[in-house]
Amino acid sequence: MPPRFEFHIAARDGKARTGEIRMRRGTIATPAFMPVGTAATVKAMKPADVRKAGADIILGNTYHLMLRPGAERIDRLGGLHAFMGWDRPILTDSGGYQVMSLADLRKITEEGVSFKSHLDGSKHMLSPERSMEIQALLGSDIVMAFDECPRADQPREAIEASMELSMRWARRSREAFDKGPTAGTSALFGIQQGALDEGLRARSAEALREIGFDGYAVGGLAVGEGQEAMFATLDFAPDMLPEDSPRYLMGVGKPDDLVGAVERGIDMFDCVLPTRSGRNGQAFTWNGPINIRNAKFAEDLAPLDERCACPVCKGWSRAYLHHLIRAGEMLGAMLMTEHNLYFYQQLMAAMRDSIAAGQFNDFAARFRADYLKVTG
Amino acid sequence: MPPRFEFHIAARDGKARTGEIRMRRGTIATPAFMPVGTAATVKAMKPADVRKAGADIILGNTYHLMLRPGAERIDRLGGLHAFMGWDRPILTDSGGYQVMSLADLRKITEEGVSFKSHLDGSKHMLSPERSMEIQALLGSDIVMAFDECPRADQPREAIEASMELSMRWARRSREAFDKGPTAGTSALFGIQQGALDEGLRARSAEALREIGFDGYAVGGLAVGEGQEAMFATLDFAPDMLPEDSPRYLMGVGKPDDLVGAVERGIDMFDCVLPTRSGRNGQAFTWNGPINIRNAKFAEDLAPLDERCACPVCKGWSRAYLHHLIRAGEMLGAMLMTEHNLYFYQQLMAAMRDSIAAGQFNDFAARFRADYLKVTG
Repeated sequence: MPPRFEFHIAARDGKARTGEIRMRRGTIATPAFMPVGTAATVKAMKPADVRKAGADIILGNTYHLMLRPGAERIDRLGGLHAFMGWDRPILTDSGGYQVMSLADLRKITEEGVSFKSHLDGSKHMLSPERSMEIQALLGSDIVMAFDECPRADQPREAIEASMELSMRWARRSREAFDKGPTAGTSALFGIQQGALDEGLRARSAEALREIGFDGYAVGGLAVGEGQEAMFATLDFAPDMLPEDSPRYLMGVGKPDDLVGAVERGIDMFDCVLPTRSGRNGQAFTWNGPINIRNAKFAEDLAPLDERCACPVCKGWSRAYLHHLIRAGEMLGAMLMTEHNLYFYQQLMAAMRDSIAAGQFNDFAARFRADYLKVTG
Repeated sequence: MPPRFEFHIAARDGKARTGEIRMRRGTIATPAFMPVGTAATVKAMKPADVRKAGADIILGNTYHLMLRPGAERIDRLGGLHAFMGWDRPILTDSGGYQVMSLADLRKITEEGVSFKSHLDGSKHMLSPERSMEIQALLGSDIVMAFDECPRADQPREAIEASMELSMRWARRSREAFDKGPTAGTSALFGIQQGALDEGLRARSAEALREIGFDGYAVGGLAVGEGQEAMFATLDFAPDMLPEDSPRYLMGVGKPDDLVGAVERGIDMFDCVLPTRSGRNGQAFTWNGPINIRNAKFAEDLAPLDERCACPVCKGWSRAYLHHLIRAGEMLGAMLMTEHNLYFYQQLMAAMRDSIAAGQFNDFAARFRADYLKVTG
């Protein structure tokens, strides 16, 4: 009988940790990168190819799925896993972040958030209870507490009030989850808020620890504050969360963000960057990102990355990808996405291996020298 | 040593024939359907999946490729096969049809056609000699003679003059091909013109036979004349072409077009329909086409086609494809295209098998009963 949720740390190197999360639908090697499957699809990828790229878990978006095709509909169709053909773990966000960034006519009260769909103007409501209900209808394996994510440039009082609201919502999320149908099979993560403020982060962490969750996310970062401010916050925020639970940095990030965050004790990530930027012609390589639209690639017979083991780098040249992306061909988006997902997973695997070998600092230094051209 | 070009007819049933074309890069089972790879990609498909669907050969478009990325560039990059990652035969059209349907400011003279690119307005010229040169630069396995394809609704004098021009261009194509670098490795097909006119079709066929080609296309159909007029022409036009050479009906067609054309002695087809209509949400099934956008499919857990053996029908429901296409997700276009290409190839295989078994008429009747709901 596989466990509902277990986190085993196999090795540590500085603050960095490697291990695995064991769940009913599969094991997740950490540090883990979760490709984003917003609308029940990792864009331009078949699920089997997402898996082949190395993903143990993907992310689904509550906000998008509740609007289209609808959570009740997905439930009637057998849940998100069967619907999209991905049988391994799925983490769903709570909808809290995207309702604030995408929906129209948002109104926040103690109860929750009412809003209009950006797709068709229909009226909807999200609250801790409704978010738990939707995530259960989707069949989520890792459910995120419903929270509010304020912009980092707000006054401290607004950040504080928002964090406190999120902590009350975290408790209601816990209570609703525990009464819900998936309490015995899924996991629930809390989300630390408090923007860049150490005191608020500490109070948020304390509130979450008191409630108790299977894992803890660092929320409210990667919202425009820049890498330096994010790393400064990650210098203290993860340490405030339980050492023996996974820590998930939401919505991050660039390859160098991932390395810096693992260095600071983060175990899980999600980000649209490899998929979205792939569709737009940006490829990640060990020598930094390249824009394949650039005219210099028009007759470049090299693969995207000489060191990459992905099927795209084995099969096609930069010149071909340049042509496809310039011509707006779907295969261009497909192949660029596939390469980028492989690249991200190869990066995570390299970090896991280097932590296990006690050589994470060496790895990070070599990575930065090649990727950022930073030496010394 | 594989042959440059051999056509072996293994069985006949009425006018229908099944057999194979043997070439350096592979064998093509006939009747054959060639997926269209306009811009060096069968849209939304990896080459390996096009092959898995059952395609022995694909088609590339001279007009599109000469404009972007350019024939000389493809040659410098190792030819079209290496560029796009397809190592089996490729048939290229001559550019004649598409320059008339897509290019701006066309001017036709005895020499050829001058025009401006629809992409960037740049000036270009196509002639029999330049078309042969481009197709050789691409590395085409089956090269099409350069022709003019007039609209079928023109007066007979215009159709006649156009056909005679095409026959003079066919001779120049033959001469240029024979002097070209791929005369010993590629094949050259002539194209019969004459629209719906039996007398003009006979004169065109006679001219082509006198020149001599490896195969013969029936051109100038599927340009808006309707299935009845097309079949009426196919009742006589293919019979005028050499019995022991492959006959290729260009740009056709719907599944019922293919069955009716095979019945009339056609061996090869190409058409954008399975790929283009797939991207638009139309799926071909043994019970006729369906539009997956239709609201009735929103909670339909059945596959696109219960009798289809393709990976899409094995993996996903109509409900999921409905969601993807409605949401504008690339995976929707990918999966619909894949199913349609499998469907077309399964249809061709079923026709080949039924001809070999001497049961083509039974097959065609059963096909029409299910597909067109035509009985008796």
